[in-house]
Amino acid sequence: METMKGIIQRYQHQRISLVEAGVTRHRSIFSGLRALAMGQPDSQLSKPEVVIIHDAVRPFVEEDVLLRVVTAAKEHGAAGAIRPLVSTVISPSADGCLDHSLERARHRASEMPQAFLFDVIYEAYQRCSDYDLEFGTECLHLALKYCHIKAKLVEGSPDLWKVTYKRDLYAAESIIKERISQQICIVMDTKEDEEHVGHHLKEMLKNELSHVKVTSVALSHTGRDLQQILLEQCYNFVCVNVMASEFEETQKLLDVLKENNLSVLYPVVIISVHFLDYKLIPLGQKMENLMQIREFAKEVKERNILLCGLLIYYSQDEQKLQDSLRQGATIIATLIKERNSGLIGQLLVA
Amino acid sequence: METMKGIIQRYQHQRISLVEAGVTRHRSIFSGLRALAMGQPDSQLSKPEVVIIHDAVRPFVEEDVLLRVVTAAKEHGAAGAIRPLVSTVISPSADGCLDHSLERARHRASEMPQAFLFDVIYEAYQRCSDYDLEFGTECLHLALKYCHIKAKLVEGSPDLWKVTYKRDLYAAESIIKERISQQICIVMDTKEDEEHVGHHLKEMLKNELSHVKVTSVALSHTGRDLQQILLEQCYNFVCVNVMASEFEETQKLLDVLKENNLSVLYPVVIISVHFLDYKLIPLGQKMENLMQIREFAKEVKERNILLCGLLIYYSQDEQKLQDSLRQGATIIATLIKERNSGLIGQLLVA
Repeated sequence: METMKGIIQRYQHQRISLVEAGVTRHRSIFSGLRALAMGQPDSQLSKPEVVIIHDAVRPFVEEDVLLRVVTAAKEHGAAGAIRPLVSTVISPSADGCLDHSLERARHRASEMPQAFLFDVIYEAYQRCSDYDLEFGTECLHLALKYCHIKAKLVEGSPDLWKVTYKRDLYAAESIIKERISQQICIVMDTKEDEEHVGHHLKEMLKNELSHVKVTSVALSHTGRDLQQILLEQCYNFVCVNVMASEFEETQKLLDVLKENNLSVLYPVVIISVHFLDYKLIPLGQKMENLMQIREFAKEVKERNILLCGLLIYYSQDEQKLQDSLRQGATIIATLIKERNSGLIGQLLVA
Repeated sequence: METMKGIIQRYQHQRISLVEAGVTRHRSIFSGLRALAMGQPDSQLSKPEVVIIHDAVRPFVEEDVLLRVVTAAKEHGAAGAIRPLVSTVISPSADGCLDHSLERARHRASEMPQAFLFDVIYEAYQRCSDYDLEFGTECLHLALKYCHIKAKLVEGSPDLWKVTYKRDLYAAESIIKERISQQICIVMDTKEDEEHVGHHLKEMLKNELSHVKVTSVALSHTGRDLQQILLEQCYNFVCVNVMASEFEETQKLLDVLKENNLSVLYPVVIISVHFLDYKLIPLGQKMENLMQIREFAKEVKERNILLCGLLIYYSQDEQKLQDSLRQGATIIATLIKERNSGLIGQLLVA
């Protein structure tokens, strides 16, 4: 209970009531339903018309499927998400041999979410046996057995699967990383100068990362553009530094993010981009100047911001510049995709 | 067929015969069995006592489960791997509502591999109907229906799952990366000097990466140690450069790997480690010297070798040195875990 209270506080959820779980799945669900029926002293709970039952272990549920099961439950009394079977289901005999196999096309996997008219599912739980509460797992079965309600079956998406094994954790991590890598915001104060190399970088990112939405904003005094991007929950920033001071734009962006709690849920990746014209300044000296990014990165790591530096060779030779920009785009894509804190504060060179 | 021939040639497989597939699963399996029964003009195929049927889409099959299904098939005539059900299985009625649900504890998912006495499964396929060949999916079912063989069911590991959805590709990639990241070999020619900072790095890697086997070898003239490591299929090398020439040891290691085709199956990660005593040489100058790693990395990338550089601050201050070594270990762990080609040729600093 303390862990859950901590999560609710940390993410500032407003409309959640906690109820103590039981020792089995069905006993836990029954506790939740009872709390809704009875109300609780410390909350504003009241009996709903329709109730949704879901597993926390299926984190990728979409609003669309919730709407469809709720609508179907209103009409049919009960509804649940289903998926095609991936493997054939068989029934073993007592000696561990095959008794019979089920025709795969005639069966489905029952997934979550499921929705019920509250009165239906609450009555089912009140009537069901101790054996059901102890060994049962399927809510639709209780509605059928005790209230004679034939649940409507609703086709769900593959993402509804149950995170069960270690491989499922790997898959879940990759799905989350993919979802928060769909948009990159380029921050630069060079809007008036369309020839600036920062614009070439933007074009290269658009070409190389065709599946990603690339937007750009200027850090104007009002910062209205950036506020809009933050509202869209963009978790990836490429900050183009063109001023005399090495980190002026990056520092401004960090200041804006400080006032915003974007990074509370997922880490925000910021890549601080710098350009090197090797005719003006030797590579070694420029790299040494940029080493202070290590200190910045350490500081903002505590706010769940992953900061890296990227030094791009600036060349008058069009072909060389294109090669550098392309490699820069690859490095940016890698850092955003992997989102690994082990590389924070590093200065990469393209 | 051309793609498969290319794969066989590329990985130098010796004992594979190809047979053209059918339009359904069962027709493909039947083709394979027929080829074994009849022999083929271009191969040395002969009828085996036991045959294993497996799905390519389950790439993580272990030798142990193969042995167990083959042994059980010899005794029972047929055997197959099973797994507990993750979701309840239901049967829908014609109008898309729940007809009934199956008790989860009484059913199992039928997975692969399966093994059969050759005569049993070949007879089953010869007798089975066109309907079976067109719409069936379960080999154990055919053995039961047409040869009255009750297959022995063998408990398989979770890794037998079927790579079906995009999330499964993510999971498979992570499992492969995890498997080839279990061993790190530290290459250094400082065995006689136990006080050398390279040994401190080794100790730090052992402490920080407790799940990884850390070994070290010297690049002696015979290179026997390293040959042993290569036989163990170690895909991760940390090369400690202590000689006057910046890349002497790394170059030697690359030469040894050139004669070996270790990297044909998986990318090999090499981290070229260098130490900086900032009292002797300025950081910027050292970094500039080490920039040639970009050219090395480009060259060996074609051989599926991912080369990065790591510069570790060497300090007399014990605490600072420990901090640098710890960050170095974190960077090494990150590069080995992610195995991303986007960062090759980069010089990271700890």
